[in-house]
Amino acid sequence: MKDLPRIGITLGDPGGIGPEIILRSFAGKSGLPVARYILFGTRRFLEREERALGMKLAAGTRVSGKRKTSAALEFREVPAPAGAGRRGSDDADSGRASFRYFEAAVAEARRGDLDGVVTAPISKAAWSMAGLRWKGHTEFLARFYPGAIMAFWSESLKVALVSHHVSLRVALKKIKRVALRDFFVALDRSLGGTGAGGFEFVVSGLNPHAGEQGLLGREEIDEVEPAIDEARRLGVRISGPFPPDVVFRNAVGRKDVFVIALYHDQGLIPFKLVAFETGVNVSLGLPFVRTSPDHGTAFDIAGKNRANPRSMVEAIRLAAALTSQCPVL
Amino acid sequence: MKDLPRIGITLGDPGGIGPEIILRSFAGKSGLPVARYILFGTRRFLEREERALGMKLAAGTRVSGKRKTSAALEFREVPAPAGAGRRGSDDADSGRASFRYFEAAVAEARRGDLDGVVTAPISKAAWSMAGLRWKGHTEFLARFYPGAIMAFWSESLKVALVSHHVSLRVALKKIKRVALRDFFVALDRSLGGTGAGGFEFVVSGLNPHAGEQGLLGREEIDEVEPAIDEARRLGVRISGPFPPDVVFRNAVGRKDVFVIALYHDQGLIPFKLVAFETGVNVSLGLPFVRTSPDHGTAFDIAGKNRANPRSMVEAIRLAAALTSQCPVL
Repeated sequence: MKDLPRIGITLGDPGGIGPEIILRSFAGKSGLPVARYILFGTRRFLEREERALGMKLAAGTRVSGKRKTSAALEFREVPAPAGAGRRGSDDADSGRASFRYFEAAVAEARRGDLDGVVTAPISKAAWSMAGLRWKGHTEFLARFYPGAIMAFWSESLKVALVSHHVSLRVALKKIKRVALRDFFVALDRSLGGTGAGGFEFVVSGLNPHAGEQGLLGREEIDEVEPAIDEARRLGVRISGPFPPDVVFRNAVGRKDVFVIALYHDQGLIPFKLVAFETGVNVSLGLPFVRTSPDHGTAFDIAGKNRANPRSMVEAIRLAAALTSQCPVL
Repeated sequence: MKDLPRIGITLGDPGGIGPEIILRSFAGKSGLPVARYILFGTRRFLEREERALGMKLAAGTRVSGKRKTSAALEFREVPAPAGAGRRGSDDADSGRASFRYFEAAVAEARRGDLDGVVTAPISKAAWSMAGLRWKGHTEFLARFYPGAIMAFWSESLKVALVSHHVSLRVALKKIKRVALRDFFVALDRSLGGTGAGGFEFVVSGLNPHAGEQGLLGREEIDEVEPAIDEARRLGVRISGPFPPDVVFRNAVGRKDVFVIALYHDQGLIPFKLVAFETGVNVSLGLPFVRTSPDHGTAFDIAGKNRANPRSMVEAIRLAAALTSQCPVL
């Protein structure tokens, strides 16, 4: 199984729905792709979930995919503080635990021993209570990879964000030609380049009606258009800027189109409308792929046998597709 | 018929699909509400359309509604330049014509002789070619009513915009407590006040995650929250600010909820996704109501017997509902 993609999976906050959706993803007939899966977590939380759900996830579980091959699931035990795992609320010990799982998986990926990492939900509040200085997965990754790209993926809509967790005021200041061009090129390269069969990138404008020839703002003329022109000359299949209230609507259902949003909500308002509960969050531009379900710890339903694994399954599938020779389109 | 609402309807750009969608709205079994309808236009453009479609719209056409009463359709002849009405492209004479229809209807509404005005699509480029200094309907109305509110209405989603045709940079500067409070109160009053059975207003934040307690921007804490508090004390049923990527999704399908968007694209990206081709644009905060279909002149299909009147029908219905005692919810 040397050539199978090696996908790390982190258990997430042990008080949230992470253990349940992981169990369900592997236990269900979800048709996960063939890969080597390595689960980072603390065994007692998984065992508690197995008892609660009446499911069993033994090491070596067979996962069959299209090619009818078996795939391995290994467990990487990561110790958690004694107080971790309490259900239903943000907790410093659980925060420490979920951070350690992620840290361990990232370390293995950075050594080149994983091709992808799929992260179950963590609580940002718990990380903060634990005194961690990173707000979340993305910020921790940005420490090693400042050029990491945050993207959101679903069958009907794909969106990449030029900026994410900054105020709108600061996001506006990031609309600069050189930075945009580098972003466009990095995004293209991270997806394997836009040759035949690759993605077509469409860029949203910043202002209403994409600035309407400068009447409603000049960023499109001064920064965005030149950046698009330069990226095109560098071989990227890219066009725009298009009116923001048109470009997302037109992209829905076009599998080969990736919309580039110039700030967080421009991309996430339409994405969450279109792909609620089925979307996947993906970090691109790293030496490995990182995906995660597009929802939180759902403390309110944790341990109640009600969590929906669909977004987690999609996150695992996407990680496997992006790290193998499988077509992602 | 003295107490029936009096609804003016403008023919729009005579080279666009305005005449066709008006004819179809009144000819079809679209169940328009009982009202006095007054059509502002040039008769020859309507007659051309009647011949093309094989339909006849005589004055006194009977329009039946829920109450099985007949309603009147009157024609107000407004002269157009000789060169107006050419199909298929922006034209100065057609721009002049569509402006005159609108100007005449607004004058009648300002005199108190109309309760509502429904505007078929005009071409902003044609207005500009005709040397008119107003970009469109909204800007012309703002000359008399600087407090006019631009809103978008569909059965599944209703959105009001705090600012519209300004750059995002300028829109950010408009996020100020007093102006926001006045906007909230004016919106509430324009819809009849939020007593029992009225609308519930939910306000979107400006920044990602609505600022996340000030970490991602302070406008929510310094301006938006105080404005909401003050409006609530003035009797408005209003809450927020909520994370932008959540508030629109959660409002979809809730008929009694009106989302307040803090800038143009924040509201129009989700609206056009959810209510494409069925949405209605409405100006509130005027002494009369103004609605229009949420699409343009569609020069490419004008005169080809292919225009869809649905958004126009919804615009007429909404104008009648807002100007009568009919419930709008």
